[in-house]
Amino acid sequence: MADEVREIARAARRAGKQLARRPGPERRSILLALADALGRSEARHDLAAANEQDLESARDSVAGGELSQALFDRLPLTTEKLEGLCDGLVHLAGQKDLIGVATLTRELDNDLILTRVTCPLGVLGVVFEARPDAVPQITGLALRTGNAVILKGGREAQRTNAALVALIRATLAAQGMDPATVTLLEGREQVDSLLKQDGLVDLVIARGSGAFVRHVRSRTKIEVLGHAEGLCHLFLHASAHPRMSAAVAVDAKCSYPAACNAIETLLWAPGAEEALGLSIAALQEAGVTVRGCERTRAQHPDLQEATEADWSTEYGDLTLSIRGVDGLQQAVEHIERYGSRHTEAIIAQDPDAAAAFVAEVDAAGVFHNASTRLADGYRYGLGAEVGISTGKLHARGPVGVEGLVTYRWLLEGVGHVASSYGPGKRKFTHRRM
Amino acid sequence: MADEVREIARAARRAGKQLARRPGPERRSILLALADALGRSEARHDLAAANEQDLESARDSVAGGELSQALFDRLPLTTEKLEGLCDGLVHLAGQKDLIGVATLTRELDNDLILTRVTCPLGVLGVVFEARPDAVPQITGLALRTGNAVILKGGREAQRTNAALVALIRATLAAQGMDPATVTLLEGREQVDSLLKQDGLVDLVIARGSGAFVRHVRSRTKIEVLGHAEGLCHLFLHASAHPRMSAAVAVDAKCSYPAACNAIETLLWAPGAEEALGLSIAALQEAGVTVRGCERTRAQHPDLQEATEADWSTEYGDLTLSIRGVDGLQQAVEHIERYGSRHTEAIIAQDPDAAAAFVAEVDAAGVFHNASTRLADGYRYGLGAEVGISTGKLHARGPVGVEGLVTYRWLLEGVGHVASSYGPGKRKFTHRRM
Repeated sequence: MADEVREIARAARRAGKQLARRPGPERRSILLALADALGRSEARHDLAAANEQDLESARDSVAGGELSQALFDRLPLTTEKLEGLCDGLVHLAGQKDLIGVATLTRELDNDLILTRVTCPLGVLGVVFEARPDAVPQITGLALRTGNAVILKGGREAQRTNAALVALIRATLAAQGMDPATVTLLEGREQVDSLLKQDGLVDLVIARGSGAFVRHVRSRTKIEVLGHAEGLCHLFLHASAHPRMSAAVAVDAKCSYPAACNAIETLLWAPGAEEALGLSIAALQEAGVTVRGCERTRAQHPDLQEATEADWSTEYGDLTLSIRGVDGLQQAVEHIERYGSRHTEAIIAQDPDAAAAFVAEVDAAGVFHNASTRLADGYRYGLGAEVGISTGKLHARGPVGVEGLVTYRWLLEGVGHVASSYGPGKRKFTHRRM
Repeated sequence: MADEVREIARAARRAGKQLARRPGPERRSILLALADALGRSEARHDLAAANEQDLESARDSVAGGELSQALFDRLPLTTEKLEGLCDGLVHLAGQKDLIGVATLTRELDNDLILTRVTCPLGVLGVVFEARPDAVPQITGLALRTGNAVILKGGREAQRTNAALVALIRATLAAQGMDPATVTLLEGREQVDSLLKQDGLVDLVIARGSGAFVRHVRSRTKIEVLGHAEGLCHLFLHASAHPRMSAAVAVDAKCSYPAACNAIETLLWAPGAEEALGLSIAALQEAGVTVRGCERTRAQHPDLQEATEADWSTEYGDLTLSIRGVDGLQQAVEHIERYGSRHTEAIIAQDPDAAAAFVAEVDAAGVFHNASTRLADGYRYGLGAEVGISTGKLHARGPVGVEGLVTYRWLLEGVGHVASSYGPGKRKFTHRRM
């Protein structure tokens, strides 16, 4: 099994090198061909049939309690989603090529020229829970940037994923590319082997729940891009506009409660009582179970009681905790202590309060008068999204194509050696070119 | 102990936030003040005295076999090194400010503006083996980019490091900054605690041997910047200029054998026999023990025999292995298999061979007709160097200030929510500003 996956990774590495050497316009035309293929009615029919089979099994699993409703909700590959995926691929094809770009050229000495040139990472391992749209999305990003990709999706979406990868490999072959550029793994053992291929796999992208990403991280030495948690807050400042607060709170909690950019806790400061009242009413109207701290329940005695554990809980469903704070500073401290540095938002009419919040909060996204749910690569205009990173290195927040690119330093001399330089010897010229 | 280090990290985080909020010119003047302080004769005297004490103990340790000569050689803080450090700080102060720069501004919709703004990482944990020059170097890079730093150097350099950090903290205080911005830890237990402060420490920089970096990596969940290995090659192509080959080989092996950018293996192709012969003679003349494969020993029977283990060995001293290959492709395969993706070089007069080598080899640095020893932040003109990364994410190769910077996404709206957008609803404008 390990040998088999190592062979897949080796083949991917070779295929990726071929892809990286192709000129940018060729990589672009692969994406357009892929969008075409996904748009054809036979393909739609095959994909719908495979997806329907997956949905059928998944319904049983939900009924049997083996699959959560949140995961089930990500499973359907609707026509609407497919249209979005095709649009995303076309958009991505139209973006400028990020490979082979000299981002720095410097003369170090006569005839000694240093160039920093962008290049693909190499081979991406992508593991994700049920959500088949990740397959064309991530494949598109990988191909655009000259990377090979090895995918492993959730068992629940296996048939849909297989149909998608078959379509992608057929498109690659039709374009004269090596189908080994994109491979789908099956079974848990293959994932375990994949995670051991440090040296062959350059980056693991993990998409799924916090527990899932932590699990992946704990089993590999390869660097993992993913958000282990999405514990986001919305803070209602004393100057918060009441109706705006309610509208943003409902959107941030309810428009997709399983998403990592949904909020888990609402914070409010004295002065924001009206905003709080309207928000609670609107949230309850939308079916949210609201839990309040003592200070909140003093105003809204009907709420369930929130405990210390609530502040650290990523519900992922229609539950929200609310905490009253003394003011902006305490809100920032709460976020610093309990937040996952994903996306944090303030509602405030007072620009100084907003500026202080933005200056103080350390998170990938800091929003003013906008819903945390807007934190997303597509909404940011990055084309498609590789994932959202709550780490600070390489790429932060929603990660698009630039997250799949690295660089090399190329040095061209005529026999230059280090020992020629130093005190009393030759000096570097360090001239930008 | 853990509590003590956590308190140091919390204080560093607060101090870092203060530093980050200062305008760029203030951070610059701290560096100039630091260069001034290091240049003063009393400071030089104190540092020399502390360093002499460290050297004295270290001499005993070398004699007793507890400290390697390679580590000892990094210990002296000579006037020459101090001059270089002052120059580095002044140079760094003169570089442009990387903090608070909007690298992208985009209108997502009317009155909904997205900005990507650079910011410091926060708190850096730096662990390094004996080599006190790392203290002002890394501190300079950290302060320039608004980061706080917690340092732990080798036991052998403890007195020198303490004298340097005392000088830095006094300079910070004199500039009205919080001395907690820079702290030196003592003892191994404090390092263990430091490595557990994920959530408070944003990046660990590890500088030392491969074994040391691997040890650090294995004990922390925090991301580690460092090169676990430096197994570099020099390939003599059939078209290699013989005297250039010998000069580069000697520099790449001998100018600092303990450095990570020194070569461990020389590869040669048929046609490069003269280059090989001159190289071996020059290397032996320079005191290098040369081990050859069968093909190499067929030409040079006096060489020691190289075994399979040699290809994976980072000697770190005046030992070199030599392997004959069929040609460029086999050289590339050898490097792919045994190299650590640090720096790889080819000597060739044939430009096509050089281009093929550069296209095929996956490493942070790929050099043509130049010594691998030139792979260094100072030589590249990056100011000082944080370290060399053989990872592909974030920063690759020699890492300067840009490796200590991340970014945040700021979104400013007037109550915008995600559910307003989608098929049949509002569209994002995604207009670059």
